Amino acid sequence: MDEIIFRPIGHVRSPFKTTAEIPQQSIHVPDLEAVIEIKEEFSTGLLNLDKYSYIIVLFHFDQSSGYELLVDRPRGGSPGPRGVFATRSPHRPNGIGLSIVELLRVEGNQVMIKGVDMLDGTPVLDIKPYDPGLNPVI
Amino acid sequence: MDEIIFRPIGHVRSPFKTTAEIPQQSIHVPDLEAVIEIKEEFSTGLLNLDKYSYIIVLFHFDQSSGYELLVDRPRGGSPGPRGVFATRSPHRPNGIGLSIVELLRVEGNQVMIKGVDMLDGTPVLDIKPYDPGLNPVI
Repeated sequence: MDEIIFRPIGHVRSPFKTTAEIPQQSIHVPDLEAVIEIKEEFSTGLLNLDKYSYIIVLFHFDQSSGYELLVDRPRGGSPGPRGVFATRSPHRPNGIGLSIVELLRVEGNQVMIKGVDMLDGTPVLDIKPYDPGLNPVI
Repeated sequence: MDEIIFRPIGHVRSPFKTTAEIPQQSIHVPDLEAVIEIKEEFSTGLLNLDKYSYIIVLFHFDQSSGYELLVDRPRGGSPGPRGVFATRSPHRPNGIGLSIVELLRVEGNQVMIKGVDMLDGTPVLDIKPYDPGLNPVI
């Protein structure tokens, strides 16, 4: 009854065919290129996206089944356990991933990006402009 | 067939009862406080979230119906039109919103936050730690 239904706006075409090949964070693979293929019906939504150098990509962890509320050995942080919302684990109640990637160019319905940590075939839910001016100053 | 089904992990309790009251970006209302009430079944997932000063909140624009692929007068940018994926418009194919907010404290299933641009009752899809070290250096 409180279900929220989304459909992919497109899919990632990346060099990573298995989860084992995926780096921990996109910032660690700044040179790898990939493509987001947007469905033709949505390609108009890309107009002027190329005004931005970086974009936020929201995607579905479609290869992760189930979730764990406690992560015993979170990556890249202090020793666990840690709650799943304090991690970027793909095993989350709603399997939404977030990557900030460099935008190379847009050609039709193809969004060429650099700095990829997404599996080939990953369903993309949304693209947003990345505006560093909206980041908190810490 | 390619439907992706999510369920809220909780809801926002904020001072904004109508969309007209909502500021353009959370960074413009740094002092407003609000609460994310996480469903009890997920509250374990908040363990150690308070190690972070800021969190990323993904939420559902449940008061926005439909979408427009072209935004004629995008907020805060150069004159339009612009594709919806080059904006933060709530009227998107998948109505997912993203806010980076200051984390004040966590008490049980209550996440106290500051810098709110979400409507009271907004369904929350996910919380992720905000790590400024993962931002691109532009």
